[in-house]
Amino acid sequence: MTRQPSRAPSPRTRARRLHEKADYDPATLHAILDAMPLAHVGHLVDGAPVVTTTLQWRIGDRIYWHGSSASRMMKAAAGAQVCVTVSCVDGMVLARSGLEHSVAYRAAMVFGVAEKLTDPAEKTEALRLMMERLFPGRWDTLRPMTAQELKATAVLSLPLTEASCKIGGPEATDPPEDLGWPVWAGCLPMTTAIGAPFAAPDLPPGIGVPGYLSAFRWG
Amino acid sequence: MTRQPSRAPSPRTRARRLHEKADYDPATLHAILDAMPLAHVGHLVDGAPVVTTTLQWRIGDRIYWHGSSASRMMKAAAGAQVCVTVSCVDGMVLARSGLEHSVAYRAAMVFGVAEKLTDPAEKTEALRLMMERLFPGRWDTLRPMTAQELKATAVLSLPLTEASCKIGGPEATDPPEDLGWPVWAGCLPMTTAIGAPFAAPDLPPGIGVPGYLSAFRWG
Repeated sequence: MTRQPSRAPSPRTRARRLHEKADYDPATLHAILDAMPLAHVGHLVDGAPVVTTTLQWRIGDRIYWHGSSASRMMKAAAGAQVCVTVSCVDGMVLARSGLEHSVAYRAAMVFGVAEKLTDPAEKTEALRLMMERLFPGRWDTLRPMTAQELKATAVLSLPLTEASCKIGGPEATDPPEDLGWPVWAGCLPMTTAIGAPFAAPDLPPGIGVPGYLSAFRWG
Repeated sequence: MTRQPSRAPSPRTRARRLHEKADYDPATLHAILDAMPLAHVGHLVDGAPVVTTTLQWRIGDRIYWHGSSASRMMKAAAGAQVCVTVSCVDGMVLARSGLEHSVAYRAAMVFGVAEKLTDPAEKTEALRLMMERLFPGRWDTLRPMTAQELKATAVLSLPLTEASCKIGGPEATDPPEDLGWPVWAGCLPMTTAIGAPFAAPDLPPGIGVPGYLSAFRWG
């Protein structure tokens, strides 16, 4: 699969290697962010890098993530340079040499200065849309958020202006002289399996499993 | 599930929040690293954080990852402060309030100054053990690594001395006053499903699927 990379938006998003895997198309970026909520946010704490695992969600041309207002990671990231990386693994690619082994994946990196949401209405709407992304319709059925809970939650955001994607396909790219080597080559596909939901032990009787759980996707 | 956290090895690994989820036991750390090859490495490029997706593997009390010697990420990380984060997602935890929603997960963070392997024999052995971790027995069946390929591959490593784990269980932790709220609560489990391997289109006939593929685990 040969891709035609569009133009990198900045020097640090421009692929230096594996150009054929790079993609700067917003549609590709949106598709990766919408497929995979898991994100790894890189920021500095006392000058050293820290990578925090969290969930991200997209609203239009911005990416959002949240955490406790008391979290040292959220405090360190607000107003600072961050890198949010989102990775979907689609399989393992087995080649004839160790060097050509790879992972089939879709990954996105978003760079910028993280902006902290301060308007309570905007924060509330962002959190509602996070829940809508995961479990459409659930927000309105929850015990409503209190002012104290909203205050205890920090929401950070970045525009999607400085971002890049890389996509690695399932094909092994062995050089022609290796193709006759007598070892199996191919791809071992991987997906996220969603299991059967199990109820909290203290769930009152008569509350059925909501329909949106069967539509839940990850990756 | 209440865990008894052991002692944090440094100030930056000490949990400031969610102490009950923190774990500094080497056995917990080893189990997470051995379960999940996917890693997100945080390092600085021109003073700003960058999070690179890669695969990690453990040898004894060290963590390793590799990349192209030409990679700007590998060059930037060698000899510099890094944070390697490994995350396994086990499910989504649905509570009665938005705030108490969470992810069931196992995550590890390893901090330190990345050391670049320079001895060719040591590098070769580290790469062999990476392959052994993923596909036991495959290394010896591959087209042997050339000196040029070894040179083109950089291997970085960290001791596991400064690390911490966090484990979030599948239980919703709603406060007592929320338990009667009429909304479903519980856990939606998630696992990585390994699909059926498919052969490269140019695989010569007569080469069967190796047995180690059926033992492959991720997460």
